[in-house]
Amino acid sequence: MKRMLFTPGPTEIPTEVLASQSRPIMHHRTDEYRSIFREQTRLLQEFLATTQPVLTLTASGSGAMEAALVNILSPGDEIIAVEGGKFGERWGKIAEAYGLTVHRVTVAYGRVATPEEVESAIAAHPKAKALFLTHSETSTGALFPVHEMAKVARAKGLLTIADTVTSYGVYDLRFDTSDLDGVVWGSQKGMMIPPGLGYVCYGPRAWAAAEKARLPKFYFNLTKARASLEKGDTPFTPAISLVIAAHAAASMQAAEGRENVFARHERNAEATRAAVRSLGLPLFAEVPTNAVTAIAVPAGVDGGAVVKTMEHRYGVKIAGGQGSLKGKIFRLGHIGHYDAGDILRLVGAFESALSDHGHRVEPGTAVRTAQESLRRATAPAGVA
Amino acid sequence: MKRMLFTPGPTEIPTEVLASQSRPIMHHRTDEYRSIFREQTRLLQEFLATTQPVLTLTASGSGAMEAALVNILSPGDEIIAVEGGKFGERWGKIAEAYGLTVHRVTVAYGRVATPEEVESAIAAHPKAKALFLTHSETSTGALFPVHEMAKVARAKGLLTIADTVTSYGVYDLRFDTSDLDGVVWGSQKGMMIPPGLGYVCYGPRAWAAAEKARLPKFYFNLTKARASLEKGDTPFTPAISLVIAAHAAASMQAAEGRENVFARHERNAEATRAAVRSLGLPLFAEVPTNAVTAIAVPAGVDGGAVVKTMEHRYGVKIAGGQGSLKGKIFRLGHIGHYDAGDILRLVGAFESALSDHGHRVEPGTAVRTAQESLRRATAPAGVA
Repeated sequence: MKRMLFTPGPTEIPTEVLASQSRPIMHHRTDEYRSIFREQTRLLQEFLATTQPVLTLTASGSGAMEAALVNILSPGDEIIAVEGGKFGERWGKIAEAYGLTVHRVTVAYGRVATPEEVESAIAAHPKAKALFLTHSETSTGALFPVHEMAKVARAKGLLTIADTVTSYGVYDLRFDTSDLDGVVWGSQKGMMIPPGLGYVCYGPRAWAAAEKARLPKFYFNLTKARASLEKGDTPFTPAISLVIAAHAAASMQAAEGRENVFARHERNAEATRAAVRSLGLPLFAEVPTNAVTAIAVPAGVDGGAVVKTMEHRYGVKIAGGQGSLKGKIFRLGHIGHYDAGDILRLVGAFESALSDHGHRVEPGTAVRTAQESLRRATAPAGVA
Repeated sequence: MKRMLFTPGPTEIPTEVLASQSRPIMHHRTDEYRSIFREQTRLLQEFLATTQPVLTLTASGSGAMEAALVNILSPGDEIIAVEGGKFGERWGKIAEAYGLTVHRVTVAYGRVATPEEVESAIAAHPKAKALFLTHSETSTGALFPVHEMAKVARAKGLLTIADTVTSYGVYDLRFDTSDLDGVVWGSQKGMMIPPGLGYVCYGPRAWAAAEKARLPKFYFNLTKARASLEKGDTPFTPAISLVIAAHAAASMQAAEGRENVFARHERNAEATRAAVRSLGLPLFAEVPTNAVTAIAVPAGVDGGAVVKTMEHRYGVKIAGGQGSLKGKIFRLGHIGHYDAGDILRLVGAFESALSDHGHRVEPGTAVRTAQESLRRATAPAGVA
């Protein structure tokens, strides 16, 4: 049976990228590989709108998060972590694994923290050196105002590092003109490639902090990774095939154009949200991200059964909730290589499976709503 | 131009495995993925002859080395590291990055240390908790007697961890009946898949030490990896496509039969060494490994030029020396998916390129010698 992933990672991989994975392996200490690796890096820099080095780590996003944290801090340091979901909570867990003191700004799942709450936390914990944020919280579908929070933190002398795991490739992060000092993401989301690579980009303030940071690190030593990158290398054998995939996928995105990629995500997300609302269902997130649409499971409906029916009857794999949200939310991912037709497939399967499990609406409601939303969003001038 | 890798990693990848990489991506939180992951793990356990969990990390071999070290030690600990090449030196560097005290048993590049030298080092440093070894030193082509060294260490109460990066899949490591407490390797060598996965297997004594170890770790927390493995999972998103490759490649090796795989490596290495000797060239390593044959560059020959000619004129990519051995040795890799015909291709290209660069021998010497060595090694009963 044909199946398509609409999970918030891994995401669908373009056929062109999959094809790149079956070519004979290339050695990494060659000019051929180095030129691909350099070009991949340049394309990622363009997408981030940065001149800073983008470091490629052979690790999943969580490994890249650990790298981003340990390279700017020292034993005894205090940090502030903003938590409103499973991934926000990860920052505090990493810091505590290294013996640091963590001050938390915690909001309920689905809600987002405000810059004012961050400002209060900084005032309450004047020794805190850095602020750790999640841009698009994959577990709840909420979008946090990381640029505004970073501005507050910079004014008080803190560094800000944001997890952009599900926002890279979805939003225009404009790293160099933001107050963010570091961003970190993984390969299996907006990059449209398999998992296995993690990325970190530091700004000048984070690099200055890295010179003095004394937390132990070897594999995740970013200073060494930066020095290697200048020679087109990595300190350790890279996941060659995944870097080749990254280059292929980033080339496709560059051909589409970065603004067009971001606009397409906005369109797809808006159409998905409109379809969900047309079914009478509430969005779970207070401020929804364009990466993943989280929806509260309606009373009387078995959420797990809907997810299974979507996959096995309609060929669309979405995600349910994780941890305490298990069975309570649906998560419809639309990060990466999806177009208008894919969104109709997604919301059509969602509506059909809900009907199968007792949440009846007039047939075609969700699909029609999404179709109209997408048609309006791409209307050429003069078309009604 | 057709090119084939005879580098000591990455190694050639079977076409069947490459083909597995272009299938649509699979989600990792599914029964389908879990059954592949479990089966991969079972096949690796069979190859190691162990009932202990084999942990799959999304990282290169060096990341797995760091994981193997930090999970059994605490701040202030002392270790002994045996060093006779670039990879042996890595253990001490990792330990020092975590502030540990390192006592080194150092031998010249190309030589191997003895169990007696290890015994003396243990006597001289009675506080040392663990011994770190390299089985097959990829940078020099030397094979260290890790099983005998581990026996000495166990008698004195030390744990022994061996880097088996280029010996996994080449030698029968027989983990459970050895005195080794841990082994660690990467995916791009004897496993015949691309780089990007690292593996660690601990024995019961290492797991007991892990309960008390206090070095910081998060991404490389092996206790969490073991708990996840029991559910067919990993703590973080795995490099799904590479795990699928590992399953495909390990299935091919299981079909060939583990003893046959090890015997084939022995045959290929022996034929390569015989061919090298027939050219009047000395092996660089005192005790050569069946993974990679290192050869001193003859006086008057430009080693770098030979490596380039082999690649560009004869379609065979080998490695030169690293660091201080640059230009001084050739390294002919024969780890993984190579048969008799591949070895003729390798030594034929080597002989031809040497001739091109002034080291003249009777044409066909190396190929004929390898051919005879391989023919004798596979002779059925009754064939002369």
